[in-house]
Amino acid sequence: MTQLQHFLTLDDLDRPALTSLLDRAQSFHVPPGQPLQQHAILAGRTVANLFFEPSTRTRASFELAARRLGANVINLDMANSSTMKGESLLDTLYTLQAMNTDIFVVRHHVTGAQALMAKHAMPHVHILNAGESHVSHPTQGLLDVLTIRQHKSGFSNLSVTIAGDIEHSRVARSTVQALTTLGTEDIRLAGPAEWLPKDIPGHSFTDLDKALEGADVVMMLRIQKERMGKDAIPDEQDYLQRYRLDAERLRRAKPDALVMHPGPMNREIEITSEVADGPQSVIREQVTNGVAVRMAVLATLAEQ
Amino acid sequence: MTQLQHFLTLDDLDRPALTSLLDRAQSFHVPPGQPLQQHAILAGRTVANLFFEPSTRTRASFELAARRLGANVINLDMANSSTMKGESLLDTLYTLQAMNTDIFVVRHHVTGAQALMAKHAMPHVHILNAGESHVSHPTQGLLDVLTIRQHKSGFSNLSVTIAGDIEHSRVARSTVQALTTLGTEDIRLAGPAEWLPKDIPGHSFTDLDKALEGADVVMMLRIQKERMGKDAIPDEQDYLQRYRLDAERLRRAKPDALVMHPGPMNREIEITSEVADGPQSVIREQVTNGVAVRMAVLATLAEQ
Amino acid sequence: MTQLQHFLTLDDLDRPALTSLLDRAQSFHVPPGQPLQQHAILAGRTVANLFFEPSTRTRASFELAARRLGANVINLDMANSSTMKGESLLDTLYTLQAMNTDIFVVRHHVTGAQALMAKHAMPHVHILNAGESHVSHPTQGLLDVLTIRQHKSGFSNLSVTIAGDIEHSRVARSTVQALTTLGTEDIRLAGPAEWLPKDIPGHSFTDLDKALEGADVVMMLRIQKERMGKDAIPDEQDYLQRYRLDAERLRRAKPDALVMHPGPMNREIEITSEVADGPQSVIREQVTNGVAVRMAVLATLAEQ
Repeated sequence: MTQLQHFLTLDDLDRPALTSLLDRAQSFHVPPGQPLQQHAILAGRTVANLFFEPSTRTRASFELAARRLGANVINLDMANSSTMKGESLLDTLYTLQAMNTDIFVVRHHVTGAQALMAKHAMPHVHILNAGESHVSHPTQGLLDVLTIRQHKSGFSNLSVTIAGDIEHSRVARSTVQALTTLGTEDIRLAGPAEWLPKDIPGHSFTDLDKALEGADVVMMLRIQKERMGKDAIPDEQDYLQRYRLDAERLRRAKPDALVMHPGPMNREIEITSEVADGPQSVIREQVTNGVAVRMAVLATLAEQ
Repeated sequence: MTQLQHFLTLDDLDRPALTSLLDRAQSFHVPPGQPLQQHAILAGRTVANLFFEPSTRTRASFELAARRLGANVINLDMANSSTMKGESLLDTLYTLQAMNTDIFVVRHHVTGAQALMAKHAMPHVHILNAGESHVSHPTQGLLDVLTIRQHKSGFSNLSVTIAGDIEHSRVARSTVQALTTLGTEDIRLAGPAEWLPKDIPGHSFTDLDKALEGADVVMMLRIQKERMGKDAIPDEQDYLQRYRLDAERLRRAKPDALVMHPGPMNREIEITSEVADGPQSVIREQVTNGVAVRMAVLATLAEQ
Repeated sequence: MTQLQHFLTLDDLDRPALTSLLDRAQSFHVPPGQPLQQHAILAGRTVANLFFEPSTRTRASFELAARRLGANVINLDMANSSTMKGESLLDTLYTLQAMNTDIFVVRHHVTGAQALMAKHAMPHVHILNAGESHVSHPTQGLLDVLTIRQHKSGFSNLSVTIAGDIEHSRVARSTVQALTTLGTEDIRLAGPAEWLPKDIPGHSFTDLDKALEGADVVMMLRIQKERMGKDAIPDEQDYLQRYRLDAERLRRAKPDALVMHPGPMNREIEITSEVADGPQSVIREQVTNGVAVRMAVLATLAEQ
């Protein structure tokens, strides 16, 4: 079984370790409407949700994952906390650790924040990265490949197109990492030239139509509307015309291509509702898999 | 037993259905100071408190009701959430539904928000209206008639006076609906002419003193102080003189008339403390009944 | 056993009562990394965390304490609540009491707020002071003496130095009270003359170096930076030179002197990191003891 003290990045997970996490996540997967099982794997454990960036969706996903494993969960909204603001990140760690918190789920806007905490944490404590700057969001990477695995028979022959603002996307970085570990070679990154990074492996395309040709998976990223008009990015109308995924454009991919989005979506901006709610969309399945993946990571950490 | 998929309004509840909910609420009723029973009716269920308007009191009442039934409750303060704000109401529904949330307790400032969610929810999901625009607040209607039923022997012969800003009150609309279903005919709505609506059945009075003559129940609504001086409503002093319930004015009602208020009260504005804390007041009993009624609705929904 | 209806102040606790609370806290004490026991002492009880001042740290400590005793805990962030703001403190009490809340953990900026609530609460209800104006913070006093007791063999022969803004510190008031009850005579209060109060027993020092001579315990208070330059307090550089605890200054105390701080710390302001993280520091132990002390108080109240 995978041995994990912390869960900071997908970099140090090889294919067997990653596959073992996916298998475990699959065992926790419950489709909406089916009865949930209450587990006791985290009974007696305290999980702190420490979000230095506002997040409702990811925080809820982790909170539900931890509670369904039997943990005692406290939410600390550090983005709005006035009291702890003056305190350093490490003092917040030391304080909550001293209150017998075992597991920290941390979202932070600074690169390396979670690694810093891991370095200074007590030996029995686990740090879990719930989003780190624009650098990584490893549970998102896991849930993306879990969703693909539920529909496709292997990763090595897949063509995966990821489109939008790749440069500023921690989602893209973690998902590409997970795909690469599982053997996917044909990864296509599509977007305006200014948003195509040099530090992510993959083939770059400024023409989304070309990037979609014969793709098995199409993943649209959320557009930060504030970025429009900046970075030499043209205005919204021009962007929509070139990069919005609509039904016509999707026809360039394979007929059974999966449509994915990490959420929350800007409908009619990066993706049309027709596609987002269409038969090829697995966007809601990604959300369900998000809880399952977080349960798998929490359970695996707790068993060290 | 009442069959309910959603709880959006009191409109579609006939007298037996409403009475059955009240009976069930009565079975959950525990006076403060008595030991609480922990139920397992919602064990394994996830309840999301989705409040698009700030509310501490109603949110707490629903949270306690759901937890005492054994549910896993998550609070989503949508009034302050920055992340989910860009997301449409339906995408928030789809996202939380995909996280295996079964029951949504929703307060929203837009008329029809809860009905829209109910229309698009998965078949096993339940939507519960915790306050909808100025239109309805059905659990408040239920708790009001439960409180009356605990003190009076029937509804058909009651005279009920509701006073204040009826026009903008979702409480008044739902309480009048519940009373009407239970057979109360003499419903008197009292307030400045501008605050007397045309869409609520009942006898209108601009003279509170007349509306109080021989009343069995007197329900004062909360005054939104921001409305003073608007809508041709006179200033505060004038309003107090004409519409504040004080001990002298209360004497026009029956000696055993109940005094009610949905809370939170503006003491010495719409009601004097002497009356609010006096022997005829059942205001705190309304709060206790609020938890019981919400437990009854949650339990009934969950058993569909 | 100690009989407590409310926990408002340390004033009415004599030495046996205080010692008995410390003994109980010690029984709940679990060092970080050791397995936590889940208790059922508060099963079926509802605890409301009612914080009228923002607090992440103390709120988390109480929340964890109550949950580890099996309570149902609701958090009411009154500092940011818009709905209940118009409501009087007592109406908030009456409302939550009517929802079968048994125990109120209250932080308030007004002196006497908790006592007012206690006076008007129902007989079965318990009010617990989690910080009252600049006047008292009794669980902090308890955790401080518990921490000292774990390291020293008695209180009567101890020399305890408390330094910083004593005048505005509820921590100092409660800790001095606890020490006095336990027999400590040599209590030294050090700080700028303007911050030395007349209402706290102890020897006053404007020279921290003198106050440290031969001390067994050195407790540094948090400096409110907003106060710098006011009250005839000199500027930050001057303050640091005279009142910051650094390694050199600490050498004036006994070699085994304990270094304490109620947190959150301003590192390099009132205390250097070298000292705060050094071998004499028990600052993190104070945090662990905070949860244990709060469990002891909650359990003792609940058993009345």
